[in-house]
Amino acid sequence: MTGEQARLPQSQKVSRRSMLVGAAAGVVAPVAVSTLGAGSAAAQGRGKGRPGRTGETHRVTVYAEELPGGLYGYGLEPGKATVPGPVFEIWEGDTLEIELVNNTDRRLSIHPHGVNYDVASDGSPLNDSFNEPGETRTYVWSTSFQSEGPGGFWIPGSAGYWHYHDHALGSDHGTEGIAKGLYGALVVRREGDVVPDRQFTVVFNDMTINNKMAPDVPILEANLGERVEFIAIGHGNNFHTFHLHAHRWADNRTGYLQGPDDPSKVVDNRDLNPGDSFGFQVIAGDGVGPGAWMFHCHVQSHSETGMSGIFLVRNADGSMPDGAQEAIDRYLGHQGGH
Amino acid sequence: MTGEQARLPQSQKVSRRSMLVGAAAGVVAPVAVSTLGAGSAAAQGRGKGRPGRTGETHRVTVYAEELPGGLYGYGLEPGKATVPGPVFEIWEGDTLEIELVNNTDRRLSIHPHGVNYDVASDGSPLNDSFNEPGETRTYVWSTSFQSEGPGGFWIPGSAGYWHYHDHALGSDHGTEGIAKGLYGALVVRREGDVVPDRQFTVVFNDMTINNKMAPDVPILEANLGERVEFIAIGHGNNFHTFHLHAHRWADNRTGYLQGPDDPSKVVDNRDLNPGDSFGFQVIAGDGVGPGAWMFHCHVQSHSETGMSGIFLVRNADGSMPDGAQEAIDRYLGHQGGH
Amino acid sequence: MTGEQARLPQSQKVSRRSMLVGAAAGVVAPVAVSTLGAGSAAAQGRGKGRPGRTGETHRVTVYAEELPGGLYGYGLEPGKATVPGPVFEIWEGDTLEIELVNNTDRRLSIHPHGVNYDVASDGSPLNDSFNEPGETRTYVWSTSFQSEGPGGFWIPGSAGYWHYHDHALGSDHGTEGIAKGLYGALVVRREGDVVPDRQFTVVFNDMTINNKMAPDVPILEANLGERVEFIAIGHGNNFHTFHLHAHRWADNRTGYLQGPDDPSKVVDNRDLNPGDSFGFQVIAGDGVGPGAWMFHCHVQSHSETGMSGIFLVRNADGSMPDGAQEAIDRYLGHQGGH
Repeated sequence: MTGEQARLPQSQKVSRRSMLVGAAAGVVAPVAVSTLGAGSAAAQGRGKGRPGRTGETHRVTVYAEELPGGLYGYGLEPGKATVPGPVFEIWEGDTLEIELVNNTDRRLSIHPHGVNYDVASDGSPLNDSFNEPGETRTYVWSTSFQSEGPGGFWIPGSAGYWHYHDHALGSDHGTEGIAKGLYGALVVRREGDVVPDRQFTVVFNDMTINNKMAPDVPILEANLGERVEFIAIGHGNNFHTFHLHAHRWADNRTGYLQGPDDPSKVVDNRDLNPGDSFGFQVIAGDGVGPGAWMFHCHVQSHSETGMSGIFLVRNADGSMPDGAQEAIDRYLGHQGGH
Repeated sequence: MTGEQARLPQSQKVSRRSMLVGAAAGVVAPVAVSTLGAGSAAAQGRGKGRPGRTGETHRVTVYAEELPGGLYGYGLEPGKATVPGPVFEIWEGDTLEIELVNNTDRRLSIHPHGVNYDVASDGSPLNDSFNEPGETRTYVWSTSFQSEGPGGFWIPGSAGYWHYHDHALGSDHGTEGIAKGLYGALVVRREGDVVPDRQFTVVFNDMTINNKMAPDVPILEANLGERVEFIAIGHGNNFHTFHLHAHRWADNRTGYLQGPDDPSKVVDNRDLNPGDSFGFQVIAGDGVGPGAWMFHCHVQSHSETGMSGIFLVRNADGSMPDGAQEAIDRYLGHQGGH
Repeated sequence: MTGEQARLPQSQKVSRRSMLVGAAAGVVAPVAVSTLGAGSAAAQGRGKGRPGRTGETHRVTVYAEELPGGLYGYGLEPGKATVPGPVFEIWEGDTLEIELVNNTDRRLSIHPHGVNYDVASDGSPLNDSFNEPGETRTYVWSTSFQSEGPGGFWIPGSAGYWHYHDHALGSDHGTEGIAKGLYGALVVRREGDVVPDRQFTVVFNDMTINNKMAPDVPILEANLGERVEFIAIGHGNNFHTFHLHAHRWADNRTGYLQGPDDPSKVVDNRDLNPGDSFGFQVIAGDGVGPGAWMFHCHVQSHSETGMSGIFLVRNADGSMPDGAQEAIDRYLGHQGGH
């Protein structure tokens, strides 16, 4: 299976560098998300908006770099930038301080969705918040717990499947920076949320998936029964719909139901337009078995021209399921006629 | 009223063939949905995710055929294919085995949303799952109950307003098959869900409604006070928004609220993009009276060029309400300038 | 600060004329929304769908007029039409009778979303419901409480962030009327809903915001800590996504959570397509501080070409925060390159 291993998914590599930071303030370790496991989440019970965790402050240095093929990326080490950038994971209540080192010759920034930041950390040229070429600048993102508001209503907290992106390269809206790869996922978990075994970032960016087109979209791999988290992000100038074969989720904050009476719509296809993001977890192959499952934009002209990839669910022991290699070969063999 | 009767809606005809299969395993009867009625649903109480029904397996033969005008359709009898195809209705927990007979000279398949299937029933050429011309092949769709998951969250079940479509005609994504009519509605009901009196499938497929344009979109008819179910499906290459005059629904799994504190957004206009689907029930004319009510894509250029139809709410006794015939005549008289 | 005051936002002016009608039947006073305040809402407790208020009937005269620049608008006094038109606010259970005076030489109408109306008040040429040039015609919009329905489900009420628009100018769909400014917000509040301090209507209409483009989009102003209500409406022929910097809300009926277990997705970016609308309230600058916060369409080519504005959060005492004037100057200085 050398062929598949050579095609290890980009976002899987990235997830190994992701930061589910449960450690002491200021300590940033590239913790594999699977080390916490789901058991611990279940054991914690559900966080009902009560701030169980005391907010901690984590610091990380991010390097913005030019990449081959005219791309740009964010990375956690010099020379290691990727598209998408690393997944940032924090707990509701935490603060993340990002020291952004601009190792390019272009003006750029980092702008988050969903979290709190003052104008100096806005990442927008409007607020004079960006890095000149070669400049290092710190952006501070904090988070809030949900809290009781007026009239018995509650004010939303920061927990969610969010994202971050450049807001300054090429224009005041970061249009060129985004087009060329300066984006990534930002996950803010609430106490009690479920931690996945594997995690994939899927960005529909103009007519690409993670700035790649079929058959070059990385294959996303998991073993039967693993808890897999998808973080889907939309960018660019086009409308899209994200479809995953044989798996479904609830269209709400977590992708799970809050209980048996949760009215949330269950979906396997969801709009994914610029600036939007959502996330969900599935048990790989649950009720459907292992195999090469398609994920693609369901806008027909978009899937036809390359917005299509494979979620490879291996057997529970990691071996290839019957027929999966043939499916992958069909996918790889297609160069336009898919 | 010969004129209107001659224009009996396509999807109304279809609904008479729809299969709300509550019978013994393997027995497939074209039961009119109204035979169960809402009373029975209410009497059952609400299914709170507990598997009250034991899953049954239903078998049906579906014929894919070429139709006049370059269209293709699915049907439950040879020579009876329609666009959209028949509504498939099952209960959560059931399994549906579809024996698809390909009576065309083109490769094609059937691919469902929302339900469970293994790779052999994927309907995708990627998984070698399709019918060659003249071939008969069985596709198996099963369903799951919602169930308690990790951390007190619940894993979604299969209940929902889903759909099915070709995934192989003309390309590996079924783009030509979908464009030419190979699609239909799939409803998976949960115990306690409400059964409608009438049911309409409305597919926004590229710039058409059910592959027709005004003034040829079939008129959807109901009597004042009847419980009418709309199943809306999006397909093709364009973005759309579905608007129904004078009726509204909750944007969640059922279109109803789960109770008085259900936070769901109430809408009368909803995005309907490719691969997406939703359903809801309204009491025809409730609070607004009978008449010729428009439904249309709210993208202005789309409604202008023909994505517009009529939901005709007759008087309770089935007679035509004042002014409705004149409204229909205006609709029929327009050939572009609507 | 003369410069900013000269740029007082259009919709803020409009909100002063909005009608949160809590007065006796038939009395229509241009009440500033802030006079009720949030305290009163909290004091009322949450309306759980029980009709606490008896429905009242309010009457208002609306004047449709031609405006400079080829625009059309609705207004509450002759010669005072605006784009967007006035915000109509009523309580669930109320009825609003609109006497529409057509002071233009074009056929036009007024068509609402979300509320009840019979065919005579549909506002559509299909139902012969429009004003000829110079004609005065009365449209009646009523509302319903949510109520228990079949099987323990509830039928949605009329409460929501809705909108109204022309449905007759230039075509049977009002395409020209909408394009030229005949639209506005319609808010139906439920007993217990929270009343804001300030209110802004933001309409993404084709490639404009309220028929203006940056840097001419009015600056929306509030003081730190004020409760600000955004009503976002989509119109035209394009898809859009509405993004507000540094503030977030729940994507449901109110924008608040119904309680700590509400599963609603929390967003700061949301699809805003033709015919759709949503609303939410934020505490200006909550957790992020004052400043010039961007709001814009997140479709990159749309923000680049002018779908971008400023939500100016002043200090609590109304003074300008540090750096905000410079940000506004940057915004005003940009004429295409933003």
